[in-house]
Amino acid sequence: IPKDFNANQPKTIKLYPLSNYTFGTKDAQPEEDPSVVSRLERLETHYKEHGMRRTCEGILLCHEHKSPHILMLQIANAFFKLPGDYLQAEDDEIEGFKTRLNDRLAPVGSQFSGEGVNDEWQIGDTLAQWWRPNFETFMYPYIPPHCTRPKECKKLYFIHLPRTKVLSVPKNMKLLAVPVFELYDNTQRYGPQLAAIPQYLSKYNFEYL
Amino acid sequence: IPKDFNANQPKTIKLYPLSNYTFGTKDAQPEEDPSVVSRLERLETHYKEHGMRRTCEGILLCHEHKSPHILMLQIANAFFKLPGDYLQAEDDEIEGFKTRLNDRLAPVGSQFSGEGVNDEWQIGDTLAQWWRPNFETFMYPYIPPHCTRPKECKKLYFIHLPRTKVLSVPKNMKLLAVPVFELYDNTQRYGPQLAAIPQYLSKYNFEYL
Ligand SMILES: [Zn+2]
Ligand SMILES: [Zn+2]
Ligand SMILES: [Zn+2]
Ligand SMILES: [Zn+2]
Repeated sequence: IPKDFNANQPKTIKLYPLSNYTFGTKDAQPEEDPSVVSRLERLETHYKEHGMRRTCEGILLCHEHKSPHILMLQIANAFFKLPGDYLQAEDDEIEGFKTRLNDRLAPVGSQFSGEGVNDEWQIGDTLAQWWRPNFETFMYPYIPPHCTRPKECKKLYFIHLPRTKVLSVPKNMKLLAVPVFELYDNTQRYGPQLAAIPQYLSKYNFEYL
Repeated sequence: IPKDFNANQPKTIKLYPLSNYTFGTKDAQPEEDPSVVSRLERLETHYKEHGMRRTCEGILLCHEHKSPHILMLQIANAFFKLPGDYLQAEDDEIEGFKTRLNDRLAPVGSQFSGEGVNDEWQIGDTLAQWWRPNFETFMYPYIPPHCTRPKECKKLYFIHLPRTKVLSVPKNMKLLAVPVFELYDNTQRYGPQLAAIPQYLSKYNFEYL
């Protein structure tokens, strides 16, 4: 009998099949800023008034054929992003994040009812942090030397999906289930933050239900 | 006052300066196998007899100028590796790993005495797992689809260094303190497993003592 090899690890995570989830649509959510320059200007205004911007994104997992898949938004058939957004200065971290997840993915009105419609989001472990040292596009998974006041910190959290759930996606976006093996070593297509998701998850063991 | 942003994170990790640690040398430890082919043949023999090989490596952290550094072995002025090794089939995971760390880094004889000489290793969280699906060099930070019996699993653990410690390094190796920013985005020099260390660590916050 082979000896155990699961010391000092988080408990096994249950993943449900993609087909357990129901996807609807809702009104489009256009980008807040028309350009990268205006986004960085908004960040600078926020920083001067409130200090470091806090951004929260969720890693939502399910499986297909016993392989973990991540639910990602694709905008305008082009770039990918995780559900989430920056918090308002006065927001509590977890409550504010749940509000942003609902803005993005909760069904509106009374279209749906029953199990999984109004379930709270289960926010799990922090999986990564990325810091923006300057009012520039580059972010790093560490605080660069001699940077004492990062301008933004983005946290990625493990979101534990329940057995079933209804998700409504803004009309200008698509929700895709991307397998971990597609993300791995694929910075070119997904960027450094999303391509590292397999690394964030590698310490977990999964059970495929 | 800016709102908190530390929910769902491990507790802050204390790092001590590199200068707190004492480095000695000991007898050379030549590679067990003369070539990659013979290493993979040894793995195949082990697998047939005992099943999946279990390999344990440690991520030992200290700081210089308030920037986290990882202690890594460099062999023959060329490739880098983390301290650790594969376990014997009959080894308990954590006890076997401590034995491997001592083989590699503990002082021998009575050369040194006092604080930090004979302290036990503090094995912390698992930071990553890498799997080898076949008797080949490639490893992945996930179990590839349709791979039901990986041939090797390598686990990387956070090792919490005490305030001070004596480490003895085999004469054919060098122990280097490599900063996280040097590893980031540097797969070419360090390979995919070591270049991802900044990602494994990014969810932690550090206190520099
Ligand atoms: Zn504001
Ligand atoms: Zn299939
Ligand atoms: Zn054996
Ligand atoms: Zn300095």
